[in-house]
Amino acid sequence: MAYDLIIIGGGPAGITAGIYAARARLYTLLITKGFGGQVARKAVAIENYPGFEEISGQELIQRFEKHLRRFEIEIKEDSVVEIKRQNENFLVFTETKEQFEARSLIVASGADPRPLEVPGEKEFIGKGVSYCTVCDAPLFSDKTVAVVGGGDAGFEAAIALSNWAKKIYILEYGSRIKADEVNQERVKKTGKVEIITNAALKEIKGKDFVESIVYQERDSQNLKTLELQGVFVEIGSQPATSFLKGLVGFNERDEVVVDPKTGETSTPGLFAAGDIDEVPYKQIIVACGEGAKAALSVYKYLQEKGF
Amino acid sequence: MAYDLIIIGGGPAGITAGIYAARARLYTLLITKGFGGQVARKAVAIENYPGFEEISGQELIQRFEKHLRRFEIEIKEDSVVEIKRQNENFLVFTETKEQFEARSLIVASGADPRPLEVPGEKEFIGKGVSYCTVCDAPLFSDKTVAVVGGGDAGFEAAIALSNWAKKIYILEYGSRIKADEVNQERVKKTGKVEIITNAALKEIKGKDFVESIVYQERDSQNLKTLELQGVFVEIGSQPATSFLKGLVGFNERDEVVVDPKTGETSTPGLFAAGDIDEVPYKQIIVACGEGAKAALSVYKYLQEKGF
Repeated sequence: MAYDLIIIGGGPAGITAGIYAARARLYTLLITKGFGGQVARKAVAIENYPGFEEISGQELIQRFEKHLRRFEIEIKEDSVVEIKRQNENFLVFTETKEQFEARSLIVASGADPRPLEVPGEKEFIGKGVSYCTVCDAPLFSDKTVAVVGGGDAGFEAAIALSNWAKKIYILEYGSRIKADEVNQERVKKTGKVEIITNAALKEIKGKDFVESIVYQERDSQNLKTLELQGVFVEIGSQPATSFLKGLVGFNERDEVVVDPKTGETSTPGLFAAGDIDEVPYKQIIVACGEGAKAALSVYKYLQEKGF
Repeated sequence: MAYDLIIIGGGPAGITAGIYAARARLYTLLITKGFGGQVARKAVAIENYPGFEEISGQELIQRFEKHLRRFEIEIKEDSVVEIKRQNENFLVFTETKEQFEARSLIVASGADPRPLEVPGEKEFIGKGVSYCTVCDAPLFSDKTVAVVGGGDAGFEAAIALSNWAKKIYILEYGSRIKADEVNQERVKKTGKVEIITNAALKEIKGKDFVESIVYQERDSQNLKTLELQGVFVEIGSQPATSFLKGLVGFNERDEVVVDPKTGETSTPGLFAAGDIDEVPYKQIIVACGEGAKAALSVYKYLQEKGF
């Protein structure tokens, strides 16, 4: 029997959509590799999810997951590899070769860290190059590291790293820091961080492990080398959308085009929410709101079709 | 000195905007008559704000307010009566005759209960007619009451009233109930609720207090009378926008027209969030998300102006 709804993704948007769908008694399946999305990898405590003055990403996600599991909803730990239309329904194919059918979809599969795409990056993954500060910071005790990216994520990575590393560079491509003032002040307080703006990373070098990076000063064009042992990549994310090609529209950042009031995509019955869509602010509370809207839109869509 | 930002309203949208503005170190004033908006008047526990499986409206708002007050932000208990442009800034005038100036505004003043506009309604306010179930339900112990409105708010009012009243009618104008399935099942379980669809309320009658209501069956055109002592009005809300006339656009429901990605209105520097705007789903988590987006948009707006 076809599900009323399949939700793809177990981050804030997918979980909130699940809570709303379950309360509407939609026959719902949620497919995700694990719960949390990028929240579970947050390097510092979360202070801007209203209701929790300070909470770790892991704890918030545990509360979200527990909240979701309170309701009647099927959950499958798997990855979606393909979606096909079948008449007005959707067929969803997973990595473990299973197939599910649903009358509607909410895609909330989030985003992966955006890679640097410079020589040495792939070679040194796990050997000094990291996309997850909270996972890898303790490996760099008394070492020198660079964080690439001068937004909030980069600054939060530097704050977390300051508990371990002895020296941290933040490299920002632009001429201006984009992190919020609180994060800027906290980075300053560590006394361990040197910020380099107008820096275009060119190469990561080493033998068995990372030993240095080369960047270009964008104003002078000079090449500079920094001796260090770790590179943390925080230059944003790219939406996980490969299985959506041909079904929805994308903007220039590969984000799914939606009606931001409802989460509707260009395919009727297919909705998107969270970091995968083009809503500009990638925040937990924003993703939750989008997830709720998408689920309420699905309910309306199914009702109009005679649910 | 002009504030960077004045936030008008202390419900979920205004509070979240305040948290985000404070974290961005914007010099911010929040003006509100009190905290909570419609949340503080919720008749039943909230089960769909992610992270709290079950929490009363009052408790959630207390947590929100405490979270906000952790940050540096000025708060003034007052009501806004007028807004004027002064060059690129805004002048905000309050009920207590104070005047404040700001470089940007977020209007999150929410919505008031929509009145029935039938004879007897105004006459019997506080004498049987109520717009606040959580405030007034205990006054109707062993009485018969009607809830006007067959959406989630109406059903939640009926569930709350079932702890006190002996019999509850739900009158719905349309031919179909709009409340979600969980609320429908809970209303059924009380064994005290009779649902009347296609019912157009015509009059509220009584001497000193409400004694009966008259409604028209919309299919047969017949007039019917119900003897009862209380009428709870739950037919939605109307945005509190009188002080915005001439500054922003409105849709046909008097909601402020915004870019739902950012909260921008037609006036640069003036943003809106929460129940006051045209985003269709009036949910706490949605209002919070809109509040965060509006504050982040203000930050970007002020940065572009050389903040």
